[in-house]
Amino acid sequence: MAVFSDLALLDQQDPLSSTRDLFSLPEGVLYLDGNSLGPLPRNVAARLQQVIQQEWGEGLIRSWNTADWLHLPQRVGARIARLIGAQPEEVRAADSTSINLFKVLSAALKLCADRPVVLSDTGNFPSDLYIAEGVLQQESRSRTLKLVEPEAVLEALDEQVAVVLLTQVDYRTGRLHDLKAVTRKAHDVGALIIWDLAHSAGAVPVDLDGSEADFAVGCGYKYLNGGPGAPAFVYVAQRHQESLQQPLSGWLGHAQPFAFETRYTPASGADRLLCGTPTVLGMSALEAALEVFEGIEMEGIRKKSEQLTQLFLELVEDRCAGWGLELVTPRRPEERGSQVSFAHEEAYAIMQALIAEGVIGDFRAPNLMRFGFAPLYLSFQQVGTAVEHLRRILSERRWDRPEFQQRAAVT
Amino acid sequence: MAVFSDLALLDQQDPLSSTRDLFSLPEGVLYLDGNSLGPLPRNVAARLQQVIQQEWGEGLIRSWNTADWLHLPQRVGARIARLIGAQPEEVRAADSTSINLFKVLSAALKLCADRPVVLSDTGNFPSDLYIAEGVLQQESRSRTLKLVEPEAVLEALDEQVAVVLLTQVDYRTGRLHDLKAVTRKAHDVGALIIWDLAHSAGAVPVDLDGSEADFAVGCGYKYLNGGPGAPAFVYVAQRHQESLQQPLSGWLGHAQPFAFETRYTPASGADRLLCGTPTVLGMSALEAALEVFEGIEMEGIRKKSEQLTQLFLELVEDRCAGWGLELVTPRRPEERGSQVSFAHEEAYAIMQALIAEGVIGDFRAPNLMRFGFAPLYLSFQQVGTAVEHLRRILSERRWDRPEFQQRAAVT
Repeated sequence: MAVFSDLALLDQQDPLSSTRDLFSLPEGVLYLDGNSLGPLPRNVAARLQQVIQQEWGEGLIRSWNTADWLHLPQRVGARIARLIGAQPEEVRAADSTSINLFKVLSAALKLCADRPVVLSDTGNFPSDLYIAEGVLQQESRSRTLKLVEPEAVLEALDEQVAVVLLTQVDYRTGRLHDLKAVTRKAHDVGALIIWDLAHSAGAVPVDLDGSEADFAVGCGYKYLNGGPGAPAFVYVAQRHQESLQQPLSGWLGHAQPFAFETRYTPASGADRLLCGTPTVLGMSALEAALEVFEGIEMEGIRKKSEQLTQLFLELVEDRCAGWGLELVTPRRPEERGSQVSFAHEEAYAIMQALIAEGVIGDFRAPNLMRFGFAPLYLSFQQVGTAVEHLRRILSERRWDRPEFQQRAAVT
Repeated sequence: MAVFSDLALLDQQDPLSSTRDLFSLPEGVLYLDGNSLGPLPRNVAARLQQVIQQEWGEGLIRSWNTADWLHLPQRVGARIARLIGAQPEEVRAADSTSINLFKVLSAALKLCADRPVVLSDTGNFPSDLYIAEGVLQQESRSRTLKLVEPEAVLEALDEQVAVVLLTQVDYRTGRLHDLKAVTRKAHDVGALIIWDLAHSAGAVPVDLDGSEADFAVGCGYKYLNGGPGAPAFVYVAQRHQESLQQPLSGWLGHAQPFAFETRYTPASGADRLLCGTPTVLGMSALEAALEVFEGIEMEGIRKKSEQLTQLFLELVEDRCAGWGLELVTPRRPEERGSQVSFAHEEAYAIMQALIAEGVIGDFRAPNLMRFGFAPLYLSFQQVGTAVEHLRRILSERRWDRPEFQQRAAVT
């Protein structure tokens, strides 16, 4: 069990201690919500000013060429590729996670026309399930979206399954799927697999190519720190690219967008996953934000992430014992992502009390407090301080205060 | 025929002469490409700095509530609604034009299951046709995308047609469809209609409600000046909203996104057209850009637009006669949008020569020079100056210079 004097030493020995300076974090805030919205990397504001004033303001329409706005999806995709074990030509930044999932699920199902089941789990982010409903309703044949408990996925994989659709890290519990093992089992039964890496990219080492994954999507605004509503990304393994047909066939996925032909001919490779005009402001922010990862290996991030989550978990169980907090995150580091969640019947109000103290995590219905640990800007001592705030709030029963009971629109 | 002394007088009498100061336009540039990418409104840079530094940097995740990021699609939609003759609750800002078209075309076809034809015209923007192909390939029944010449649309409307899909202003020629008349004829034969207002919104008065249009989509980065790749918008007439089923059923289109249910239940009204997390940077830029339109009626914009395009057209035909320019835009102001296009076999090189002089229009394959006229920042004297540049380039046959023949990636 770590004690406070150890924490300063851990910080001194932390090889990632200096990346914190790359972020603009408000004074007095302990930010444990980078799993929901990453903080502002310092270089992003200056980059956006340049895009706005020089590229848009001065360059105007010419910047499609002179600033190469046109290839932002490829450039940003290439930066993400390195973090998820993919080749640059397999990843594009585009649209939102939900929309990218619509593209690849539609495409994957075209490759498995004869199987009746899309398999997912109850730990998947709801938007992924809603999108799967939307895709299935559009299909000419009737298929079922089958949901099982996360622990039952391997067992539920059989030859009825066309496509498995999973989020690697459960947004509530932080439980981590074994990407390689599930992918292998999916292939063993002849199914294709789509991974949602929303809570993995930038936090957990992912080896898409090495695991022979088929498709993946993910989010730009969580551990990649691309800003609120940042563009998402989409991955298609090279072997599927030339047969891929996706229904959101917009002009920037065309083989020759500027020929302005009346018939659609898909671009070669992953470019056919593009649809409309890239969101230049959001793409540029994400492109700049990804510079933070330059020269950093995911293994180092993961090592510190495991230490941070383990420290938090142990400190909470030690210092906050007896107030009814229930750990819902797997206790073994290799079974969780970069977050720790506790259930409590007053989770909402306790979290509001924490936020009032500058310790920012978030609440997820019905009764979860989530704490995300981003190794690039968090220290071990901060983890200790956060737990002390939590202990004080619990010991003073601050959840009873009316201002903390009041629900906001976004929780 | 206007002469130069008249132009100064026209500028003096122009009720829109002062809105130019609301834009940041580079010195020495005559910008005739606002139909492709609107210039930077001055307030946008400051607004984006605030969003980045205060809302994202300081507010972090809390800004979903404190800055009400969650309702950007509604707030921005309401600002656009006034410009297109719609109620605020009928318009949402979201995603790209192509993606919004996918939503409403899929939804419209569900309402007309028994008819075999989607009708469009050869003047439609290609991405709209590509999206229609994508929607039709997803459908369980076989329907045809029928393309006719723009002039033949009214005649082609018959009881085979499920949905008519038209861009009101032709991106190449500037020809303007009579939105009200085509909508009436579509309804007379029992078809639904989708209008793409990409080149209309902010340039041409549109009365969607008064015309009883069914659906519309449009672009945020042309005459609305929302910045490169700005969010697009989507309109659904109130009478269709509660029966509307669209396949991109993401979490922010859910009745209760923060209940995190596993089954999709559509939100009421136009909110069900939302899909993923709003792109806060792009949405905020567009929201600020739309302040330029405050207190301005579309009729005043249209009047000046007709004058600017008429002046340009007449001046070019007078001052540039004999060099083979062929007008492809309708000569009658009521039959065109806010652009004028000329065909010339050296169109690409002539346009490059113009751009080198700071007169920025654009080229569209195979042989068109497009000039857009945005009344909020263009003066009559600028139109005169632009024509004099064109005259000089033509008289010196500058298109022969090798640097102007070199094709860029984006044309």
